Amino acid sequence: MLARARWRNKMTMIKIHKKAILPKGFVASGVSCGIKRSGKPDLALFFSLTPAVAAGVFTTNTMKAAPVELDLELLKRARTFQGIIVNSGNANCFTGKKGRLAARAMAEAAAQGLGIAPGGMLVASTGIIGRQLPVQKISAATAGLVTALSRKGIHHASRAILTTDTCVKQSTARFSIDGREVTVCAVAKGAGMIAPRMATMLCFILTDAAIGRHALQTALRQAVAGSFNRITIDGCMSTNDSVMVLANAQAGNAPVSSASSRSLFSGALESVCRALARQIVLDAEGSTKLITIRLSGARTDAHAQQAAMAIANSNLFKTAMYGENLNYGRVVAAVGASGVACRQDSFKVSMGSLKRKSILVRVDLGLGTGSAEVLTSDLTPEYVRINAEYS
Amino acid sequence: MLARARWRNKMTMIKIHKKAILPKGFVASGVSCGIKRSGKPDLALFFSLTPAVAAGVFTTNTMKAAPVELDLELLKRARTFQGIIVNSGNANCFTGKKGRLAARAMAEAAAQGLGIAPGGMLVASTGIIGRQLPVQKISAATAGLVTALSRKGIHHASRAILTTDTCVKQSTARFSIDGREVTVCAVAKGAGMIAPRMATMLCFILTDAAIGRHALQTALRQAVAGSFNRITIDGCMSTNDSVMVLANAQAGNAPVSSASSRSLFSGALESVCRALARQIVLDAEGSTKLITIRLSGARTDAHAQQAAMAIANSNLFKTAMYGENLNYGRVVAAVGASGVACRQDSFKVSMGSLKRKSILVRVDLGLGTGSAEVLTSDLTPEYVRINAEYS
Repeated sequence: MLARARWRNKMTMIKIHKKAILPKGFVASGVSCGIKRSGKPDLALFFSLTPAVAAGVFTTNTMKAAPVELDLELLKRARTFQGIIVNSGNANCFTGKKGRLAARAMAEAAAQGLGIAPGGMLVASTGIIGRQLPVQKISAATAGLVTALSRKGIHHASRAILTTDTCVKQSTARFSIDGREVTVCAVAKGAGMIAPRMATMLCFILTDAAIGRHALQTALRQAVAGSFNRITIDGCMSTNDSVMVLANAQAGNAPVSSASSRSLFSGALESVCRALARQIVLDAEGSTKLITIRLSGARTDAHAQQAAMAIANSNLFKTAMYGENLNYGRVVAAVGASGVACRQDSFKVSMGSLKRKSILVRVDLGLGTGSAEVLTSDLTPEYVRINAEYS
Repeated sequence: MLARARWRNKMTMIKIHKKAILPKGFVASGVSCGIKRSGKPDLALFFSLTPAVAAGVFTTNTMKAAPVELDLELLKRARTFQGIIVNSGNANCFTGKKGRLAARAMAEAAAQGLGIAPGGMLVASTGIIGRQLPVQKISAATAGLVTALSRKGIHHASRAILTTDTCVKQSTARFSIDGREVTVCAVAKGAGMIAPRMATMLCFILTDAAIGRHALQTALRQAVAGSFNRITIDGCMSTNDSVMVLANAQAGNAPVSSASSRSLFSGALESVCRALARQIVLDAEGSTKLITIRLSGARTDAHAQQAAMAIANSNLFKTAMYGENLNYGRVVAAVGASGVACRQDSFKVSMGSLKRKSILVRVDLGLGTGSAEVLTSDLTPEYVRINAEYS
């Protein structure tokens, strides 16, 4: 309760907008380069006019896509970055040496177009796994992509990173440090292959805050733990999941370091991540419901998270939600199979009206004080259809 | 290869039938007692005319149904049993003290009707979780159930244990020990909530072999490991899964104890379990495909099993199979997320024609000699519909 009150208090100092508003010193763009057969936008660029520190959280899948491997390497070596180039329609994963060269070529083409040093660009790809990335299409489109850079381009960029998403995911937080306005703007793509134990999907965060890169990395890890790692759509862990943040210090604030400024910055970062996590679940492939699982009474918070995720990933639970079928048994069976300590005589389940779009499922294991909240979607014939045909 | 040759050699001595043929000294019956609103058969009885030794393997779900808890207790205490009474339509799970009393009452009603000591009966239930079992309906139907007992009654019994199954699952193995014909007959119900790490679903095995109960339990564990624990339909672990075997020694063979007779008996037991496991996957809820995942090149057999199960439980893989969509990427992503050691440069996947009903997926991790084979089904809109509506 105290934690919630503190969170609310902090939140009164942070203003959240549902749209993307670029922080000072950033521009972005999105174009069609021809990877998607549909002709929809499939290439995006996020750019800081001045060098920025960067942080990233990536998939824990052993089979990482080439751009993820490249980013991990770049983030270890370089101190500052200026941009992120992203394509959709092809994940550049399981593509071998050719794929690794393609990821590098993509970053280099962007750097050349922008007139910055190679190595100043991070990269991301999303889409089909296992096909070679048509990197020449990306190189050919880079000049146009750079020309299109603008403040409003963030809307084009947020569209160009989508795959089966039906809408853009945007969120902006604003707050003040020592009278200076700081902006944290984030866009994401979700839709399928969303699961815990990782950063989940693609998310790009831009901020004009002045902050050191270690503090930035710590704040990002924390924000991801409280947002993207608490959602699941189909329990399938992607090979490309990346959350990256660039901070270019253009707000002119004294670098974030005091407990209060850290807390404020972390709060803003977590807020935009939570907003996007919710938007991702709302736009889950084929879904008709947004389901919040609030689990309490576990021995530990980790147990609570494990049990809540087991419910959220149970196909039988998810189909029952789709059918508006009040089936407590499937909740019980899922928790019982999760490996988490539980007992029938202390187990309580309750659900709000299943007729609504948004459903709250409360589970109390009655054993301790551990708790967790997880968001998920229902499993529908439409999810099956989308994923049977996606190629 | 040697193991396979040995298996084949053993199999030439065992004759497998796709139908249920009761061993000597067994009768069975199945009736409608009114639990299922459809009026379909929902109460079954398996009975040995003489005392039999028994063994069982049960779900590892923490939330066990009342009949499973009762059987575990009975199997610890009693040396011999004469029958198993089973109802479908209600799982008698998560039903508290009342449910535990109902399971006992069900066994006692059957024992009384049969004129045997209470405690001589094992019980099983399957169906909806979380509703009180209408045990008075069962008690009222017991007299008719006993009257209906016959050699051919096994066909009625095998029908009365079904829930969403579309067909009965039966298998019989016959072989000789010292010139005496021994029969192992098994029936099962499957359809949904089928997952590994347990006995899986309901299966009742009757044999006239003479065998000690410890040897019987060992052979059963082994048979389950090689059959039911190698299939998965939806990754959801049931609260009621039970595999039980009764052995009444009426074949007149010298008790199974030599290495060769043990091997033969185990082979027969595993054969019927494998046949039923395959029948269960073939009749998986809403499925259109039978998928065999043959995984090799893992560091250990346990790794191979874990990786194969991860593929078999991936919704994205299963929907791709339904869509006849050759998507190697989803196989790679599932193995990468499984936690099993793997490397992109040594990973190989191949699939047979996806147009067929039966599909073989070969995966070679290229790291060692561990291997495993797992059976699964595809994920279809029909699976979602069945489970959205089932109540």
